[in-house]
Amino acid sequence: MSFPADLSAASLAVAGRLARALDALPESRVKAGMAHGLHGGKGLRGYLVLESCALHGIARDVALNAAAAIEAMHAYSLVHDDLPAMDDDDLRRGRPTVHVAFDEATAILAGDALQSLAFQLCAETGHAGLTAALARAAGAEGMVLGQALDIAAETAAAPLTLEQIVQLQQGKTGALFGWSCLTGPILAGADPAPLAAYAMALGLAFQIADDILDTEGDAATAGKRLQKDAAAGKATFVSLLGLEPARERARELISQAGEALAPYGSRADSLREAARFVISRDK
Amino acid sequence: MSFPADLSAASLAVAGRLARALDALPESRVKAGMAHGLHGGKGLRGYLVLESCALHGIARDVALNAAAAIEAMHAYSLVHDDLPAMDDDDLRRGRPTVHVAFDEATAILAGDALQSLAFQLCAETGHAGLTAALARAAGAEGMVLGQALDIAAETAAAPLTLEQIVQLQQGKTGALFGWSCLTGPILAGADPAPLAAYAMALGLAFQIADDILDTEGDAATAGKRLQKDAAAGKATFVSLLGLEPARERARELISQAGEALAPYGSRADSLREAARFVISRDK
Repeated sequence: MSFPADLSAASLAVAGRLARALDALPESRVKAGMAHGLHGGKGLRGYLVLESCALHGIARDVALNAAAAIEAMHAYSLVHDDLPAMDDDDLRRGRPTVHVAFDEATAILAGDALQSLAFQLCAETGHAGLTAALARAAGAEGMVLGQALDIAAETAAAPLTLEQIVQLQQGKTGALFGWSCLTGPILAGADPAPLAAYAMALGLAFQIADDILDTEGDAATAGKRLQKDAAAGKATFVSLLGLEPARERARELISQAGEALAPYGSRADSLREAARFVISRDK
Repeated sequence: MSFPADLSAASLAVAGRLARALDALPESRVKAGMAHGLHGGKGLRGYLVLESCALHGIARDVALNAAAAIEAMHAYSLVHDDLPAMDDDDLRRGRPTVHVAFDEATAILAGDALQSLAFQLCAETGHAGLTAALARAAGAEGMVLGQALDIAAETAAAPLTLEQIVQLQQGKTGALFGWSCLTGPILAGADPAPLAAYAMALGLAFQIADDILDTEGDAATAGKRLQKDAAAGKATFVSLLGLEPARERARELISQAGEALAPYGSRADSLREAARFVISRDK
């Protein structure tokens, strides 16, 4: 199968696991907000979990719990990032954001409950260590820290340096990418180093691609507002490096990511394809 | 020791565990917001965890992780409940709320990171089942559902019935009380029934006492705004039952809570004292 077909198949399986988790919840406006927030992502993080687990012989139902957990975590982060007091976005994944489609209180609560659901699904793998690792990746030393640095950058006196942007992105997107790629080694008790190196390069390439998309992408295709960083005068990989050098840097990172997987040989080819997809996507 | 002294000692030990967890986080505005949100609670939920664990011979460091987890979870729920889009409160535990002392984005992120921290601490008990139970108690079938029902009640055409208020409170405060009381049996693999019955009665008595406090308490002592429910025209146990019958109902519940602990004999006397404290407190 081609990578887009693989990604669609994985995304469908993860969506099925999430639907089953939502079905178990009592009907409420918050549950409807959670479903809205979960709808329509690419499913890339869940795909990385499934591939990492497959490389380490982890049972499919355990891997699906972990994959559903990271997609719920990612969805919560978007619902809260889009709030008026945060990035104040009205469009996400081609639809109104949760606080626009519902209201602000529902968006806060739906995000909160999606985070709880993420930990429930992760704990249902039966692996407490994997759950503690997810908590560190999501919290104030990981994703939340990155988001806080991003918000602080909007009112900072001087634009961020390249080093500061790398640090910000390692929290904001790198932490969840890192956890996703490490699920297999953590669950199997295997050496995490090759997949940690892969994830580090992949996360950075993903963010450079995001900055390129923000500069020259099409909002209708991307399903979200673009050119927001330039309008806010925020430094990005593109504003600091220039468009072509940023593209070149992303290509180098993808090449490094692929090389990091050498110990897995050709069994990791789908992860190498995933890396190439990350810098060629249009949404 | 008297119960207030026991509670203070437990609260101090739990605060120590939380301080150690915060120390491990990089400095940030979000971390400062988390510390602000954690400051100054009674520590009742953490106390219940420590007592439940002590009754079942759980190691002290494991019990402290679970106790710190529930206090972080409770703190997150207050930080988010106080937000302008939610209850819009400016005073909590005798100090400005997090979004007043910092800003709204920091309060959203600090609450988010406190929830992550709660799951990290819980997972560090090494018990994935306890962590999954905490997630269910916190999420859209527990605390978040109760909070959503509470917000919906503010704009409902008719005041809630007694049955609806009981359902709301079982989510809003009952779910975390329930988990706290069940930590010992869950970690020890023991029968949860006696402590589940205790927790159910205790949670309801706690909320009736809260409604009485809201009616006739002193804001300076309570450390938060009072008479908010009456001003909003919201039905409470006091408005539906009357002040004296509500007091009588709370006393009956405390008596039931004590009787539920019969299998533990006098070893559960401190939990019986905790129940009496819950309906006599002034904050």
